Amino acid sequence: MKPNKNYQNIAQSYLFSTIAKKVNEFSAKHPDKKIIRLGIGDVTLPLCSAVVEALKYAAEELGVKETFRGYGPEQGYDFLKEKISQYYSNHNVKLDNDEIFVSDGAKSDLGNILDLFDKDNTVLVPDPVYPVYVDTNTMAGRKILYIDANASNDFLPLPDSSIKADIIYLCSPNNPTGAVYNKEQLKKWIDYANSNNAIILFDSAYECFITDEELPRSIYEIEGAKTCAIEFCSLSKMAGFTGTRCGWTVVPKSLEFDGMNLNKMWLRRQTTKFNGVAYLVQKGAEAVFTPQGQKQITENLDYYKENAKLISEVLTKHNIWHIGGKHSPYIWLKCPNNMNSWEFFDYLLENVQIVGTPGAGFGKNGEGYFRLTSFGSRENTIEAVERLDKFLS
Amino acid sequence: MKPNKNYQNIAQSYLFSTIAKKVNEFSAKHPDKKIIRLGIGDVTLPLCSAVVEALKYAAEELGVKETFRGYGPEQGYDFLKEKISQYYSNHNVKLDNDEIFVSDGAKSDLGNILDLFDKDNTVLVPDPVYPVYVDTNTMAGRKILYIDANASNDFLPLPDSSIKADIIYLCSPNNPTGAVYNKEQLKKWIDYANSNNAIILFDSAYECFITDEELPRSIYEIEGAKTCAIEFCSLSKMAGFTGTRCGWTVVPKSLEFDGMNLNKMWLRRQTTKFNGVAYLVQKGAEAVFTPQGQKQITENLDYYKENAKLISEVLTKHNIWHIGGKHSPYIWLKCPNNMNSWEFFDYLLENVQIVGTPGAGFGKNGEGYFRLTSFGSRENTIEAVERLDKFLS
Repeated sequence: MKPNKNYQNIAQSYLFSTIAKKVNEFSAKHPDKKIIRLGIGDVTLPLCSAVVEALKYAAEELGVKETFRGYGPEQGYDFLKEKISQYYSNHNVKLDNDEIFVSDGAKSDLGNILDLFDKDNTVLVPDPVYPVYVDTNTMAGRKILYIDANASNDFLPLPDSSIKADIIYLCSPNNPTGAVYNKEQLKKWIDYANSNNAIILFDSAYECFITDEELPRSIYEIEGAKTCAIEFCSLSKMAGFTGTRCGWTVVPKSLEFDGMNLNKMWLRRQTTKFNGVAYLVQKGAEAVFTPQGQKQITENLDYYKENAKLISEVLTKHNIWHIGGKHSPYIWLKCPNNMNSWEFFDYLLENVQIVGTPGAGFGKNGEGYFRLTSFGSRENTIEAVERLDKFLS
Repeated sequence: MKPNKNYQNIAQSYLFSTIAKKVNEFSAKHPDKKIIRLGIGDVTLPLCSAVVEALKYAAEELGVKETFRGYGPEQGYDFLKEKISQYYSNHNVKLDNDEIFVSDGAKSDLGNILDLFDKDNTVLVPDPVYPVYVDTNTMAGRKILYIDANASNDFLPLPDSSIKADIIYLCSPNNPTGAVYNKEQLKKWIDYANSNNAIILFDSAYECFITDEELPRSIYEIEGAKTCAIEFCSLSKMAGFTGTRCGWTVVPKSLEFDGMNLNKMWLRRQTTKFNGVAYLVQKGAEAVFTPQGQKQITENLDYYKENAKLISEVLTKHNIWHIGGKHSPYIWLKCPNNMNSWEFFDYLLENVQIVGTPGAGFGKNGEGYFRLTSFGSRENTIEAVERLDKFLS
């Protein structure tokens, strides 16, 4: 058996292990100092009660012969797809139920969707970038091009007509930068894709943090997207499902390439290589979209947004350039005094015992930048902000 | 973007839609006749109470900040991997925790594992066969060879040294035939694989139906398997998890091909393209392996086994050749009077209103055979057996 040699080309990332090592060393030397972690990429608030009750109710159903559920539809139950479809209609996007595929999260589907594409396609990813886009294509042996996201374009790169790409990754609100495309900017990408026979893989996992109604929460808010874009969304950040695993993927029925319909191909892929998301998890996800669920998750999202605002305010006060935080759980800042990413990491750890994520870990354009997140507790966020304020004064 | 053209080569199966059509037509013509379905491939008994309680307890934990769980390890929580490892040690198989990967079911992993293999490998599948083995490899463009499973080898084909295969699928107890390899037979496959640098993908989803202690429940009970086999198992049939989704895959650390370690490759694949199984589902799975859980699932498995025994007995009484049923939920019988599979389907439906699955739907060697399953209720199974007995007399 010949193994897939492309695995030899995947870069090893030492980002989070290096962070852990540095933090552990500091702790050992200074056991009395309280370290505050603002590098967390995971939610910290518990599931809301509407979801917990739905999960328990569904567990009870599964224990009774009359209400037991075995194999469900691989593409998800209609009760959940209808709720998702209604959610889209809130921002004027009309989707048919069979364009929505319930998934166990955006990460799985962002990787698995590549099954539908020939190896011989050129992939375009922005730098800095969520490493999964790069690694999954490296595993499949595809050629990868990078497009610069940097201060000169507010970390929102636009298409360059001289570049020929077939598969384009866009993430808005962005991880790691928190930058958000407006409709005019996304329209440029859609026009590029439609005229170059390219497909956009649109990662909207952070759309729930958008508060400005003018900013698009779905790529389908923009004309032309249904012939060139697949959208990946998730309940992970929206409803704290990082450990409960549910999301969805939208594959419009009008997506056709070389006479092949991607909606039908994805249905075939999923029915062959997937058995659907657990019934009780889908019932929990359904509860997110009830009025009670929406009220409860909005409270949680507001909590994180307030944390982001507090961090952003202290940076503004001290004239530290940053984006994100407003429509995103991430704050992306330029390291002061021209420090590089790791110098600033050490500087924060040594002086104020705050841990963040060096931007250089996300690509070359991340060098000199730093990511903070709003997923900490309010108390810790306030304490971190006070430490920063005092130290930067 | 160039789509994956291999999708054009996937065969469309009309097996289950044709069955549904025929049954609906019969029902419409004879609304008074009670149809008994013995074609069911899904469990019908509810989750046992140990699992339901664990699911509810975990849902509660997720609703409290102190016990909330976000992202878990992609390869599964240690609490479950330890239980699975103990389960293997019951039949003298020693596995390290990091050789066990918790999955959302055997079907997903049987498809996804192919990511680790080059396209340029020859695949060997028995005929008749679970269609997923064929379809997933067709999607990836691999060459597929078939090996005959038929009455002359008791539907347990053995390796043919003149065939050069790189990836070999074995399913024991088998779907659809219910045939079970003994240790000597599996040893022949292991020896073939080790001397031909081939890998065996061993589907053990039905191992829980084996009652004879001499028959292997895991391929790792046989010497040499850890250098040539990956094993896929599932709680679907064992504990009624078809709608709750949990299983596991064993990738031994000693699996090396061309200097590449498959255990490390699979870990990399899963951490990049998967986010793990929901925490509460893993807690439910853990409960299956407690003494109370084992007692409860054994009662359920005994229920299905008794159904299988009843079906097998009436076939034996009327001299109808069949295998399976003893260590498997499936009964695979030779259609009497040289009927072909679909003729026998019509014959049973018309005369005794029993629905089964035509063997021809699983491959050319299935022609002339028929699959019945033990997943119906006891009452219906008894009634079906009585109808058969009366009609065949």
